[in-house]
Formats: sequence, structure tokens, C-alpha cells
Amino acid sequence: MMVSGNCYKVRLAAHQLGIPLVLQEYPFGSGKTREAQFLAKNPNGRVPLLELDDGRCLAESNAILAYLAEGTALMPSDKWDRAQALQWMFFEQNEHEPSVAVARRWLAYESPHALAAKRHLVPEWHARGNAALAAMESHLAKESWFAGGRYSIADIALYGYTHCAEEGGFDLSIYPALCAWLERVKGEPRHIPLHES
Amino acid sequence: MMVSGNCYKVRLAAHQLGIPLVLQEYPFGSGKTREAQFLAKNPNGRVPLLELDDGRCLAESNAILAYLAEGTALMPSDKWDRAQALQWMFFEQNEHEPSVAVARRWLAYESPHALAAKRHLVPEWHARGNAALAAMESHLAKESWFAGGRYSIADIALYGYTHCAEEGGFDLSIYPALCAWLERVKGEPRHIPLHES
Repeated sequence: MMVSGNCYKVRLAAHQLGIPLVLQEYPFGSGKTREAQFLAKNPNGRVPLLELDDGRCLAESNAILAYLAEGTALMPSDKWDRAQALQWMFFEQNEHEPSVAVARRWLAYESPHALAAKRHLVPEWHARGNAALAAMESHLAKESWFAGGRYSIADIALYGYTHCAEEGGFDLSIYPALCAWLERVKGEPRHIPLHES
Repeated sequence: MMVSGNCYKVRLAAHQLGIPLVLQEYPFGSGKTREAQFLAKNPNGRVPLLELDDGRCLAESNAILAYLAEGTALMPSDKWDRAQALQWMFFEQNEHEPSVAVARRWLAYESPHALAAKRHLVPEWHARGNAALAAMESHLAKESWFAGGRYSIADIALYGYTHCAEEGGFDLSIYPALCAWLERVKGEPRHIPLHES
């Protein structure tokens, strides 16, 4: 879906790699990803989902990034650098997305009524999300990129929900190295913003 | 630490691959992973952490699995199968570990006093954890393994916290295909249980 940072990651990487995608929109809140036809393709019922021309399907945004980027400049060619990229991509899905992205979803895109049922979780999201942002800041105080000394799918994976974290109530101004990295990512060739991709 | 499913994954894969590890224990609740000396190695302050002989460090259990298994029988050699393995490993860190593992930690290993402060989160953990276990069941009703038609690091990643999920209040008996898969994993050559590894 267009507002999803996980879907945006895939659109951004594919655009930068020159890989054409035919987009199929699953509107936020429509429930279409929980219908039998979709669940047959992804039992986890989530987008993004990459469907090849022959019908094979691949879920999980970061697995799609790794698949599309294999053998390209967006995936480090050195084994150790590739391990570092995966390290930050697993960090993103474990520490960052479940707090930074989830806070954004409920605070910015759900109805006040729906949010009321989740309100008790907000302090937990903000505590865990800020811990994740602080770990990124610590790395970015020493390095320009997350893996292999250059822009890669690790940066794309982390950019997806970091650049719009303020919609989830996070104050990014307290992370100066992170803010500088956001600008570097935006300055990469063929960059496209979330809402125009 | 010995009780961590994330650390166990690494011990299990290394043992099956014949890779010797020197274990450094960070006792649960000791706070040692949040001290400056450890944070210099992993700014995210978590175990497991793989430290090479030359001092380079790699965090995130599933990134360590991918690094150790590259070029071995535990990592699918086909590009698509490898993408499927990564898909389930990202699923594990995003959907499964934050609910199944976190419920186990608080319900089985923290003090009643500490649990009291998290008690309001338990229904969310159980709802999300059961959704993750149901997605695994759906896959395992059709397939014996998670990627490439054979045992791989994707199975190790998911086994880590699934086999001990009942400690977190999950009833695995309602997932028969998943229970059969747990037995298949246990039957693999050089398998070691969590508390004896």
C-alpha cells in the first residue's frame, strides 16, 4: 500500500535498480490482504508481496530487497559487509519497525476510536523506538552508511520508516547524525519520496 | 545467554556446521550488555554477538546464521530458495520473536514484580504470537521445511523460540503440522537441545 514504509522500500530499491514493477494496491484497512486469495500467496497476510511473472511469490520487504539487489551495487559484494547489511536489516525488522512503524500507523493513520484500544501501548512503542533510533545514531556518529562504506539495501531498509518517524510522535532533531544520513539517502541518484513513488 | 533462543540458534547452527565457538556468558538480568565495553561492540546492546578472532563483531542472531551458513548445506544454494529462507527469517524477527519470545521472557524468566509492569501487554503478545504460529502451521501443512525443500537456517531461526513457546503460555497442541516439524528438526544430525548446548 502507498503509505506503507515496507512497500516504499521495495519501490525505492526497484526504481534505483531499474527493475520495472506493476503495482497492485491493497488499500489500508480494506482487509484484502486477509482474504483467501491473498493468503494463498502469503499465509502471513501482509504486504509487500513480490509476485514473479511465473506466479511465484516472495514476502517480507527486506527479503525482497535482498532478492532484487543480489549481484548489484545495492548489495555489498564482500561476505563480511553483506553480513553487516543483514545485521542492520534484521535489527530494522526486530527493533525498529515493531515500534517506530507501529506508532506511526496507530497515531497517524488509524481512527481515534481504533487508537483508543491501543493507547496503553504507546509508551512502550516510544521507549523501544527511541532505543532503536539511538542505536542508529551511535553507528552514524562514526560511519556514513550502514554497511560496506556505501549506500546499500541496509540504508533503504532503515530509511523506510525512519524518514517518517515524526508521524509516529518521534522527535528526530535529537539525533543529528541520523538527520544528516537521511539527507544523504535523499541525495542518492534516482531517489523517490514515499508519496510520489 | 544460555536461556536465550536467539543465542541457542547460533550454538545449534555452529554445532551442526562443525564451527567451534568460545562462549562468553552474559547472565540474564546482569545488565552487562548495556555497559560501555559491550556497547562499543554492539550499539544495540544485545546478545548474541559473534566476535571474530580479529575483533570484528556481528550482531543479530539471523545475520550470524546467514554468515556462518553461507556456502554450506544449511543455506539454500538456489537464489529463489535463499530468498525464501530470508523471508521466513525476517518473519521470525518481525512477527514471531517480538511476541512469542517476549511472552516467554516475561512469563517464565522475569520476577512476578517485573511482570506486573508488563501484564497489560500479555494479550497483545498472545494474539500476535498465535497469528505467527498459525502462519507457520499454514506453511507446514503443505511443506516439510521452510525453504528449498530441506532443513536450513530458516528452520533453525524459527525453531529457536517455537520449541519453547509453551513457556510463554502458548498451546502448541493446536498446531499439529508445526508439532511434527519440531520433531523433524530434533531428529536432524548433530541436534542439540537448548539447555545442553
